Amino acid sequence: MAQILRVNMTDRTAAYEDVPNEYKFLGGRGLTSTIVYNEVDPTCHPLGPNNKLVFAPGIVTGTNAPSSGRISVGAKSPLTGGIKEANAGSNWPQLVARLGLKAIIVEGYPQDDGWWGLHITKDGVEFFPADEYAGKGLREIFPGLFERFGKKVGIATIGVAGEHRMAMSGLCFNDIDNRPSRYAGRGGLGAVMGSKGLKLVVVDGAGGPGVEIANQELYDQGRKKLTASILEHALTKPGGALNLYGTAVLVNIINEAGALPTRNFREGQFEGAAKISGEAMAELCKTRGGVGTMGHACHPGCIIQCSNVIPNPDGTELASCIEYETTWALGANCGIDDLDVVGKLTQMCNDMGIDTIEAGDVIAVAMEAGLAEFGDGEAAIGFLEEVRQGTPLGRILGMGTGGAAEALGVVRVPAVKGQGMPAYEPRAIKGIGYTYAISTMGADHTSGYTIAPEIAGVGGKVDQFDIDKAELARNFQYSTAFIDTSGHCLFIAFPILDIASGFEGLIEECSGVLGVNWTADDIMAIGKEVINKERAFNRAAGFTEAADRIPEFMKYEKLPPHDVVWDVPDEMLDAVHGAA
Amino acid sequence: MAQILRVNMTDRTAAYEDVPNEYKFLGGRGLTSTIVYNEVDPTCHPLGPNNKLVFAPGIVTGTNAPSSGRISVGAKSPLTGGIKEANAGSNWPQLVARLGLKAIIVEGYPQDDGWWGLHITKDGVEFFPADEYAGKGLREIFPGLFERFGKKVGIATIGVAGEHRMAMSGLCFNDIDNRPSRYAGRGGLGAVMGSKGLKLVVVDGAGGPGVEIANQELYDQGRKKLTASILEHALTKPGGALNLYGTAVLVNIINEAGALPTRNFREGQFEGAAKISGEAMAELCKTRGGVGTMGHACHPGCIIQCSNVIPNPDGTELASCIEYETTWALGANCGIDDLDVVGKLTQMCNDMGIDTIEAGDVIAVAMEAGLAEFGDGEAAIGFLEEVRQGTPLGRILGMGTGGAAEALGVVRVPAVKGQGMPAYEPRAIKGIGYTYAISTMGADHTSGYTIAPEIAGVGGKVDQFDIDKAELARNFQYSTAFIDTSGHCLFIAFPILDIASGFEGLIEECSGVLGVNWTADDIMAIGKEVINKERAFNRAAGFTEAADRIPEFMKYEKLPPHDVVWDVPDEMLDAVHGAA
Repeated sequence: MAQILRVNMTDRTAAYEDVPNEYKFLGGRGLTSTIVYNEVDPTCHPLGPNNKLVFAPGIVTGTNAPSSGRISVGAKSPLTGGIKEANAGSNWPQLVARLGLKAIIVEGYPQDDGWWGLHITKDGVEFFPADEYAGKGLREIFPGLFERFGKKVGIATIGVAGEHRMAMSGLCFNDIDNRPSRYAGRGGLGAVMGSKGLKLVVVDGAGGPGVEIANQELYDQGRKKLTASILEHALTKPGGALNLYGTAVLVNIINEAGALPTRNFREGQFEGAAKISGEAMAELCKTRGGVGTMGHACHPGCIIQCSNVIPNPDGTELASCIEYETTWALGANCGIDDLDVVGKLTQMCNDMGIDTIEAGDVIAVAMEAGLAEFGDGEAAIGFLEEVRQGTPLGRILGMGTGGAAEALGVVRVPAVKGQGMPAYEPRAIKGIGYTYAISTMGADHTSGYTIAPEIAGVGGKVDQFDIDKAELARNFQYSTAFIDTSGHCLFIAFPILDIASGFEGLIEECSGVLGVNWTADDIMAIGKEVINKERAFNRAAGFTEAADRIPEFMKYEKLPPHDVVWDVPDEMLDAVHGAA
Repeated sequence: MAQILRVNMTDRTAAYEDVPNEYKFLGGRGLTSTIVYNEVDPTCHPLGPNNKLVFAPGIVTGTNAPSSGRISVGAKSPLTGGIKEANAGSNWPQLVARLGLKAIIVEGYPQDDGWWGLHITKDGVEFFPADEYAGKGLREIFPGLFERFGKKVGIATIGVAGEHRMAMSGLCFNDIDNRPSRYAGRGGLGAVMGSKGLKLVVVDGAGGPGVEIANQELYDQGRKKLTASILEHALTKPGGALNLYGTAVLVNIINEAGALPTRNFREGQFEGAAKISGEAMAELCKTRGGVGTMGHACHPGCIIQCSNVIPNPDGTELASCIEYETTWALGANCGIDDLDVVGKLTQMCNDMGIDTIEAGDVIAVAMEAGLAEFGDGEAAIGFLEEVRQGTPLGRILGMGTGGAAEALGVVRVPAVKGQGMPAYEPRAIKGIGYTYAISTMGADHTSGYTIAPEIAGVGGKVDQFDIDKAELARNFQYSTAFIDTSGHCLFIAFPILDIASGFEGLIEECSGVLGVNWTADDIMAIGKEVINKERAFNRAAGFTEAADRIPEFMKYEKLPPHDVVWDVPDEMLDAVHGAA
């Protein structure tokens, strides 16, 4: 029987608990959000003793389901002040799941200043002093960690940003080559882990019981259907857009749509877009060679393989992975069109435990405040160096977009609930604006990726400028909450939106593992329940509909080239979930 | 007929408007809060184009009513994100009132970078370039301003902190000797003025029509009764506690009560309290002589005279005025027991346009974060120098208590709604905790000074540790809102609480000016209406009862010497105003 591991950082003890019935049919985000909702006082200080950090692999994570190595991490966010779930792809959650763990709950508060690590194996949990790993770059410490604990372990860790307890810090997991590069990046979860005095969690899955599958036949049937749909869809198939160019295939597409936020959301098109695009990355891999790889997998069992390793001129590693959001944030949004600079910034973020979206947003805010010119790559690198050192300027940037703008007196602040906006301009793509505004997570594209129908023509095609999208936004939020609960990469959304058997496969796969017979209605009901718990947490934390808003400046500043403002009436936003 | 002056900073125009009926029977806080409620979108960015800055003298301000030279300033606060009213004593509002102005509303947004001044006379409004006054200390620019505009004008201005648009910046008015020292300090109103490109407002009252008094006889009768009560009460009479020792007479009293927040609210008693007390200041005035003065008036017509001028060893001016809150904030709360250091810090705050309470709170938070040791006066001076220069560390401190703590990763943060707590420990004096928690203003002792009955035995005597104080807090909030509307110094609360004819006098005085016949019930009803408008604004700005809370750490950390925690149940706080 699967268990829950509860780790107490006050007295450094750990205990295994039975899984309550309420949690048995959950995983991933559904489970982290439910545990946070049940156990964390919504009004607590996010970095104080009463917050908890919850890890949960998805329902099918640890099985051989395709692209299912996802870990959800939950807590009260120091960035937004609300509930947070961020997820990443890595073998770490696969190992956790194979040890028979549904979730790991980290609670309590350190009574001293030292850093600690956890070593979790089939035999139990060991605390070990981790001071030697603190204050250093993750790229520096990872080789020694794998040397010490074995090549096949998984590592969850924070970087110096999390040690500094900064709201822009993420939680880092190893990738398939044991790089520190797969991030549950958003919302400052690294700071929560840092506040607990916990530096890293090493998981060794060897000898674990594996994931119980209640109905192997149903599971296999679902897995095959879902796999087939992924391998068939134009976006996710081998040699498809994501596989060839990575997520950064979107750069030219979104730029063409006039919705690529440029220079701190002043414009919707970037003249240097092509130079930082996925196509440009693929070209670098071809011309520079060396370690350069498009179509890289972030974890074993991923069949979409949209990650990459971008080479330096000499063929050594410049950065891995440069996602669409990353090349946008550190590129277009800062007015930087040099992929080598974007790569260096990316690698710095990965090395010090920073969310790349938040990093690009705060660098742009600092440029907006006049601390550097847009396009000044050297200055951007200098800003991240300040973050690493924890200087006062580094601490301002470390607050994330909302906080940094407040410190610097910047009014043009592209954030919702304090969290910086991702790479889609809500003035030019209204549905994603609904998602940013209404999401329980702050401005977060992954909580309702309406870009699929609005731009990519997936799941139908809707006009990007149409403002009547409450229902669209709602359905995307519910279905996304379920995908995040299942343990699959969000990109399975493309095939399951377009290919009916793929959607059936997802349902059957999860049902097979859990021994249930879910229907499509159940999926949406589960997603809705997760969202409603998150909303209830946020409401109790002090959020009202006034927090579900696009920043004021977008209502009075026209965005070129379409010269559009944010013109969705508040009532239409509030209609997504109805009255509180 | 009185008018309202509306100043537009977009095109630098000004217009006089008739006073709407709704505003005719209001003044001071009642008027600023009503105008902000009516005209400002609660969700606007406080430093953006849609906020407004509103000045209003009280109902009787400009008459010869005792201690009535109060100006209320209102806006949406960049510190709390809610509505704000801060008030100060100066001749400035007396001159505004004598020009026949009920209020000045500053709106719009500058289209360029320059600083501007307003010169308001009986003949109208002139805009003048004020770049020459920017970036300098207020003590440096004041003499030249009075030289240029005449000794009898009044000046409202911001310092460099407001120019930097910092949330700890206040709005400064001249005192009776034309010092830059009387502050509407709290809530970052200086930043709002700075965001409008407005550096200063010079008012020349010469030749103005004066304040209309509808019923002279009733007014005179009231004025005499109120005056008599002030001159009779032990706290406010000539040679009484406030007159002899200033507000800092409270240092030893509150310390004795175990409620003097010490070293960032770690303790309730300060071993150096006596050295920074009002008695110590009086001693300095006696021994050092020179300009040293206790019993100084902040504006003409003040008969309480609790201000002071504290001398250097050589008899020159060290600081004016060192209030109780100031000597506590920059003294005990930072662990500093040297009055010369406190005086220097005070004068720095006055010189650069900073609220002294917020300054002391953020310095203590910086010490808590390890940037200096508690008690290190040189470090404290250095911190304020960083603020002046607008360095990154200065900008962190400039955010005020909540923001600075967030930037620095400090969990022990004594703030409500982001605003730093004043000089009374809520764990040890429960009623003031109600006020801090529930006030529309953030942690603000002046919005419901329950210290009167809890410590001073004024208006009855209640136990400081008794938690059942919802009714007490409510009544103090309502009556205070009225006093702030009348234009009187809050210290008239002492005599009117204890002497029935004093309270009658207040009512008759206001009634006489306005031509009404208010009763005690009307007073409370008016106060309640003001509070309700402020609460409605805050609610629309996004506040819920979750914001009406004492900081979490005070619930689990015991305060010495009484070893008490904040133990008032949330429901009792919510009972003050009932369900929203």
